[in-house]
Amino acid sequence: MSKIKVGIIGATGYVGSELIRGLSTHPSAEITVLASRSFSGKKYSDIYPTYSGICDLPLVDTDPEQIAKQCDLVITALPHGVSSVTVPVLLSAGTRVIDHSGDFRYRELNPYTESYGLPHSCPELLAEAVYGIPELYREKLRSARLVANPGCYPTCSVLPLAPFLRHGLIRSEGIIIDAITAISGAGRKTELPYSFCESDENLKPYSVVHHRHTTEIEQECSILAGKQLHVTFTPHLAPMKRGMLTTIYAVPASSDGSFCISRLQEALESDYANEPFVRVRSGGAMPNTVHTTGTNFIDIAVEFDPITGIIKIFGALDNLGKGASLQAIQAMNAMFGLPEETGLIHLNAGL
Amino acid sequence: MSKIKVGIIGATGYVGSELIRGLSTHPSAEITVLASRSFSGKKYSDIYPTYSGICDLPLVDTDPEQIAKQCDLVITALPHGVSSVTVPVLLSAGTRVIDHSGDFRYRELNPYTESYGLPHSCPELLAEAVYGIPELYREKLRSARLVANPGCYPTCSVLPLAPFLRHGLIRSEGIIIDAITAISGAGRKTELPYSFCESDENLKPYSVVHHRHTTEIEQECSILAGKQLHVTFTPHLAPMKRGMLTTIYAVPASSDGSFCISRLQEALESDYANEPFVRVRSGGAMPNTVHTTGTNFIDIAVEFDPITGIIKIFGALDNLGKGASLQAIQAMNAMFGLPEETGLIHLNAGL
Amino acid sequence: MSKIKVGIIGATGYVGSELIRGLSTHPSAEITVLASRSFSGKKYSDIYPTYSGICDLPLVDTDPEQIAKQCDLVITALPHGVSSVTVPVLLSAGTRVIDHSGDFRYRELNPYTESYGLPHSCPELLAEAVYGIPELYREKLRSARLVANPGCYPTCSVLPLAPFLRHGLIRSEGIIIDAITAISGAGRKTELPYSFCESDENLKPYSVVHHRHTTEIEQECSILAGKQLHVTFTPHLAPMKRGMLTTIYAVPASSDGSFCISRLQEALESDYANEPFVRVRSGGAMPNTVHTTGTNFIDIAVEFDPITGIIKIFGALDNLGKGASLQAIQAMNAMFGLPEETGLIHLNAGL
Amino acid sequence: MSKIKVGIIGATGYVGSELIRGLSTHPSAEITVLASRSFSGKKYSDIYPTYSGICDLPLVDTDPEQIAKQCDLVITALPHGVSSVTVPVLLSAGTRVIDHSGDFRYRELNPYTESYGLPHSCPELLAEAVYGIPELYREKLRSARLVANPGCYPTCSVLPLAPFLRHGLIRSEGIIIDAITAISGAGRKTELPYSFCESDENLKPYSVVHHRHTTEIEQECSILAGKQLHVTFTPHLAPMKRGMLTTIYAVPASSDGSFCISRLQEALESDYANEPFVRVRSGGAMPNTVHTTGTNFIDIAVEFDPITGIIKIFGALDNLGKGASLQAIQAMNAMFGLPEETGLIHLNAGL
Repeated sequence: MSKIKVGIIGATGYVGSELIRGLSTHPSAEITVLASRSFSGKKYSDIYPTYSGICDLPLVDTDPEQIAKQCDLVITALPHGVSSVTVPVLLSAGTRVIDHSGDFRYRELNPYTESYGLPHSCPELLAEAVYGIPELYREKLRSARLVANPGCYPTCSVLPLAPFLRHGLIRSEGIIIDAITAISGAGRKTELPYSFCESDENLKPYSVVHHRHTTEIEQECSILAGKQLHVTFTPHLAPMKRGMLTTIYAVPASSDGSFCISRLQEALESDYANEPFVRVRSGGAMPNTVHTTGTNFIDIAVEFDPITGIIKIFGALDNLGKGASLQAIQAMNAMFGLPEETGLIHLNAGL
Repeated sequence: MSKIKVGIIGATGYVGSELIRGLSTHPSAEITVLASRSFSGKKYSDIYPTYSGICDLPLVDTDPEQIAKQCDLVITALPHGVSSVTVPVLLSAGTRVIDHSGDFRYRELNPYTESYGLPHSCPELLAEAVYGIPELYREKLRSARLVANPGCYPTCSVLPLAPFLRHGLIRSEGIIIDAITAISGAGRKTELPYSFCESDENLKPYSVVHHRHTTEIEQECSILAGKQLHVTFTPHLAPMKRGMLTTIYAVPASSDGSFCISRLQEALESDYANEPFVRVRSGGAMPNTVHTTGTNFIDIAVEFDPITGIIKIFGALDNLGKGASLQAIQAMNAMFGLPEETGLIHLNAGL
Repeated sequence: MSKIKVGIIGATGYVGSELIRGLSTHPSAEITVLASRSFSGKKYSDIYPTYSGICDLPLVDTDPEQIAKQCDLVITALPHGVSSVTVPVLLSAGTRVIDHSGDFRYRELNPYTESYGLPHSCPELLAEAVYGIPELYREKLRSARLVANPGCYPTCSVLPLAPFLRHGLIRSEGIIIDAITAISGAGRKTELPYSFCESDENLKPYSVVHHRHTTEIEQECSILAGKQLHVTFTPHLAPMKRGMLTTIYAVPASSDGSFCISRLQEALESDYANEPFVRVRSGGAMPNTVHTTGTNFIDIAVEFDPITGIIKIFGALDNLGKGASLQAIQAMNAMFGLPEETGLIHLNAGL
Repeated sequence: MSKIKVGIIGATGYVGSELIRGLSTHPSAEITVLASRSFSGKKYSDIYPTYSGICDLPLVDTDPEQIAKQCDLVITALPHGVSSVTVPVLLSAGTRVIDHSGDFRYRELNPYTESYGLPHSCPELLAEAVYGIPELYREKLRSARLVANPGCYPTCSVLPLAPFLRHGLIRSEGIIIDAITAISGAGRKTELPYSFCESDENLKPYSVVHHRHTTEIEQECSILAGKQLHVTFTPHLAPMKRGMLTTIYAVPASSDGSFCISRLQEALESDYANEPFVRVRSGGAMPNTVHTTGTNFIDIAVEFDPITGIIKIFGALDNLGKGASLQAIQAMNAMFGLPEETGLIHLNAGL
């Protein structure tokens, strides 16, 4: 079988960089085009010297029609609002697309415009786009033309919650998601708050009310719960390059808490028994972000506080791995009929 | 007025080190004895070369009777269970004591034995000991013989919650405290999880159910609320030397959430208007741990999520500063009739 | 005695921030004016929330004549080339000045224009300006109108070398200075190389030939050696907020290396016996940058490799402490007849 | 062709962990045995949860005869002095060996006993062992029974120096190697100096005279130079998990320095033109450790200071990559007739 020809538009951000890390070792895909508005004309390894000898491809202009011709799949890592202009051109030119922006993650227009404050250039694609968590939308991914790669916070919130919502083990009201992310979550930025001297040795909350990932989490959780729900979501920033941790608080659906924890653990383990990239921790072992660094894994655990009757659910992933680029490659595998583990299962950053 | 003569038992841990930092620049106190079981016979600056030329005092044996003779105040930084043996001897010898262990923080014996799993050598002192948060127990500190310096998590939880509990603005049920601490919170340890290579670039939850600070938080919050309450508490570890952040979720006491946030902000600002070490943030500014590094400040903010009706309260402090040693010096100031700011208000670690 | 009235122009950079840290606890100085071109109209603590409750002074325009009226001393932390315009105005208005730029560090114009590539607005002041290392120019500082605060690399190179050059114990040829600095050395910058994600977990050399501090080091070393010399200097960047380490290689003046190390150690210890801020390490103890963090100390050690006959000299300091702002306060003390330790000797950042 | 069967003895240290990272994605090798004295009976992923789902093999006892039976190659990551006891047993049992200790790196016994202060259990193997830098000993590796994997400092010193020594472009006297390593260089240690709180935000020199890698560097540089030489070597520790940087000072062989830098650059580029894992930087671009993190690359650059006539050579690598485990896999490839890039060329840790 010939390799999947993949192009990346917006290749020089951190999402692009991690896509190239994952695709470079992928046995069934090859990168055919790298496009960048800012760095067109340079080699990729001029921007990321790490990739000298690994990926020295030239960076070309972001002309979607030209790019589409050379690709079976184009992965776009473009700003919100730009994707909705570029993606329709790519689709019209006959390529399939995985998009990293927020533009196609919503089933309906309303929460998008509320959360992003932007007009949408092609709302008609919202119905077609498949939300790219393979553990939830595997079947639809196989034939998808357009995949909306999820946000990092939604991935790290929805997957830990899914079994409990799906089986009605927790109430849909009162879910609180407390999340901590690494600094690469802000992208390849030159703003002062992301400078080493201003962010090292610091912890801080940010966007503490109405962070725009809230509506995305709510959309997916509502589908799982079978009813409209809202969540309380608080993101924090920690002095690390990569990694995301969620601590989620929920109330048991049943008011009798005594039997709860084993049922909860069972739900996690059975729902994810065949998932290669979901690792359910047990026996008190906790997700650590460092265990997922450079991988496509999400680690999940659940505990129950019998005194307050609160369930605690923990999720850890790499915000650039399962939280972004590597999950996109998992979705690509699903889209092209490959085993989802292909090229991903052994990937890790070591120590 | 002559200076307060201060001795420290257990001087070579991180709490001891920070006590020496604070006391070295204190205009009205002098260190007369430094005692260490492990390093007796060495100079303090042999253990902490930072202190060469700042504090070169000899380390002596931990003989409480001898030490008491040379001190108006002894500050003990001893393991839980050891303090309850040492402190009565110090008191009998006529000195006043500030203790950093958990041994004297409880009004009753039960929660101590449950939380620490240790017998208590002198439960009769529990009634006398004053819990050392000056913002709450200022009056009692003036004449206290024995002060129990609070845990870092309780300080960073109780002070942000106090105005809301005191004025009945939040429900006593359903309080959730999500906390993140720096690695020095574990003490001067040589265990693998605290090594640089195992803890850098990592975030993790730990002791996620029944962390022993839970009962201490509950004791103080119950007093403030005027009724017995329980809290859900989850600590996390982040790759930093110093700093602690709490994000606290609570439900408004009134079911009409619309007027809430300004009342909440007012309560914070009025209750802490005259407190030199509590800085209430407003206008969306959030507590950052780095703003408190090396200081005795706690920074607090409050927000309200109108969609879910949840109040979010944020607290940041330095776990060795307001969370331990510098709060002990603030308590010392109160005990000896000094303005509480003395020697503390300008202390900071800069960048 | 009334307090020294100090103004700072360029108060919002990291040098300014550390000046405020040092001056806030100084018993004999008070800050009367803080000026900033970028942030005029705001409070200092708006820019640095750390300083809420510590320094809430307003930031005013950088009008040197107005500022001079309110000050006995103005400390300027301005870009190179800007100082040489501002400083003469300050001096004419009758205030004394400590300047942090490179503009007044040279005895002659040539090395300045070569190193900085800038014209100089008042070369006539070069002869008057006193180079602000108190250990070398204490006497001249007492009456100095204008003090040029040294660069961080020069301080960390010249002080470790001084005893050996002064006593002719090393050859003036062949000195190699290998230096590593923390990221705050680059200033409060928003450039990509100083972002957390690009600088954490990275070590790199930079400006490896002709770094502009080279000529400043050479000027001072030549004076100490009594002859014109050149040094090989290589700076590196390490993932830390604060700290600087130099490892200096030199050849013994005498060709008989056998007796060398004790003579070297003696020279260090005797030359610095009465210096409060120079700590000579012995017995194999090595300078560590963390021992100097937040202090005005420089730690120095010397070793000899008998096989290759090379002397190794080590220096560590805080690039914002003895390497910049706190050394300026030490110079201020000397200028105003105070003991140099005043307000500085106990300052440290703890752990 | 069947896969190379590889066993690892001492699998749970950081070298072992990185071997497993590299071998897990290797297309032509499979791990058949993992042995650990300390953790026998556990799964590998019990010790390193990162490897859950990647490598869940059981850890067995370190019985060399049993292990040899299951392997074409055994890689030993044992303490110095232990290897020289275990390796002969492995060889007698018919397997090939790559050893990570210092025990087989020397051609002669003397420098080993001087540097390591240990007796040697089988000095007769020193003549047979091949020093495992493929760029230097490729031919011998093909048929080697025993390969001594080099130290990290020697690899990062010898490869940058080799072209200049080989072509007589630098003097063999006066070479100074200033090196900085990350904390994983100390191994999986629980000692206080490697704890997060004691090592973060710190830079320090250590073992500043007679570090035991000095003699290993001298051995290889002497062979390249064709004459016995000594080097001045100074290691330092920086607050990072992975990475090593060398800055090497040397004197041009010719006294006419004017033509030097282009000749030097040419020598580097031509000698390493066909080396897949040596990246020569040019045009002022400098090696950065982060560009090599998680890779088997070494990045090299050279500069010349025309004023002092000193050549500066820079090398960067990952101390666990090209500095240890991944170089061992490159040697394995050479030993088993595979292209050296196999399974290694794309390996990297991304951001």
